[in-house]
Amino acid sequence: MISKINLAEKFAKLDAHWSPRVVGALDDAYLAKIAKLKGSFTWHQHDHEDELFLVISGQLIIELEDQKLTLGPGEMVVIPAGVMHNPIAEEECHVLVFEKKSTAHTGSKTLAATKSLDDQLRPI
Amino acid sequence: MISKINLAEKFAKLDAHWSPRVVGALDDAYLAKIAKLKGSFTWHQHDHEDELFLVISGQLIIELEDQKLTLGPGEMVVIPAGVMHNPIAEEECHVLVFEKKSTAHTGSKTLAATKSLDDQLRPI
Repeated sequence: MISKINLAEKFAKLDAHWSPRVVGALDDAYLAKIAKLKGSFTWHQHDHEDELFLVISGQLIIELEDQKLTLGPGEMVVIPAGVMHNPIAEEECHVLVFEKKSTAHTGSKTLAATKSLDDQLRPI
Repeated sequence: MISKINLAEKFAKLDAHWSPRVVGALDDAYLAKIAKLKGSFTWHQHDHEDELFLVISGQLIIELEDQKLTLGPGEMVVIPAGVMHNPIAEEECHVLVFEKKSTAHTGSKTLAATKSLDDQLRPI
């Protein structure tokens, strides 16, 4: 039995900001994740992995070293591997993220805010 | 310079049904595609690749051999590799698809309706 995933139902169950949860997997290699964002995250980079953000609701600002992107619902961006970025949501923002299973939450640095893959894989 | 992608603007430029166009790439391995669907596509399977559909607008029916899924906006599904499926849209439906760069449009069969990767990669 194959089940569909209703993103609104999943977002309603998310209990914390900046704590992505996996809602789908492709080929055991890439993950689709949802996250509720509010406030400023942290500057980081993923040395070897691109990262795709799609805004579902709210507004996402992504600071880059030499530009700033502002995304609304239905807008997406791919942050290339190795590019420093800092996601910011002035009000609560819901995003869908696609990235490799190996992509670390806060990239090349580990912080108190860093969520492990196991944490992100908890069923929701 | 990194640019955001506005899906509504891209969908407005799509000129044909069942003709996916690439709007983003991850690690030169996976592609994000948009497609306008209307009518019934064709039964097919991707032998070695999972495929993710996210409905942006309209309603998508995915017939499987032993079940039928009906997805509305904000709903997604992963069709596992090797599973026969037939997408149907009774009215026009807009979808975002994530799949491997190697995934063939109509899977293991080539039809008149089959779009090549080069066709799907035309800038939009």
